Amino acid sequence: MYTLTPEQKEFLLQGTHTGKLATVRKDGRPHLVPIWFVLDGDTLIFNTGESTVKAANMRRDPRVTICVDDENPPFSFIVVEGIATLEADSKDLKLWATRIGGRYMGSDKAEQFGERNSTAGELVVRITPTKVIFAKDLAD
Amino acid sequence: MYTLTPEQKEFLLQGTHTGKLATVRKDGRPHLVPIWFVLDGDTLIFNTGESTVKAANMRRDPRVTICVDDENPPFSFIVVEGIATLEADSKDLKLWATRIGGRYMGSDKAEQFGERNSTAGELVVRITPTKVIFAKDLAD
Repeated sequence: MYTLTPEQKEFLLQGTHTGKLATVRKDGRPHLVPIWFVLDGDTLIFNTGESTVKAANMRRDPRVTICVDDENPPFSFIVVEGIATLEADSKDLKLWATRIGGRYMGSDKAEQFGERNSTAGELVVRITPTKVIFAKDLAD
Repeated sequence: MYTLTPEQKEFLLQGTHTGKLATVRKDGRPHLVPIWFVLDGDTLIFNTGESTVKAANMRRDPRVTICVDDENPPFSFIVVEGIATLEADSKDLKLWATRIGGRYMGSDKAEQFGERNSTAGELVVRITPTKVIFAKDLAD
């Protein structure tokens, strides 16, 4: 278990930066897709459908890597390696879907996106960080 | 070989959006890092050092996945799966490093970053797309 620093948390939660989630497919190819996420302490939380490729990959191998970056000069990024746990039928599904919806769509649409992303078959995924690389102002 | 559409190329080349490059480590964990890239026709081109983790991963397994996304509502992304070829001692190394530097740091700094990123040990990496997912306006 890796403890995120306050500066790392601030970077992860800045604005509407998405996480890019990398997992590995059954045939060994890397799979990559943007996710909406929030933090619960040091844990990254996001929702995904039970039938998605990323859910299948994480059930097979829970080792994941997530990247968030600032795409403007001088460019910074954080890469979080971690272990995924997937929770089906979570009683907190709507709570997290609403918080995540609020982060990315604004508080006025949090409820709407909370409903939209907490339907049957949606999972609560928790990523426990094991290693973090935080590279700041690369082009300076 | 996948042929990128004009709209996909435009999205890939918009502003200073970085690519997030996913490869797979020897032990099967996904590796992920932002890259600066440009296009040469349908091929994505970037530079990296011979001794980097991503170079080692691509030499072991050239199957890579790259994601570029728009992190503002209504959110869009493109995911490119492809095959990497790594060229050492490329006579075009400085040419590509300069073009890439110009894209991300501005034309006035293209030469400076072209020099900086074309030192000994730098590779020219070409990604030939094999599959593309382009998802637009996800939150609409």
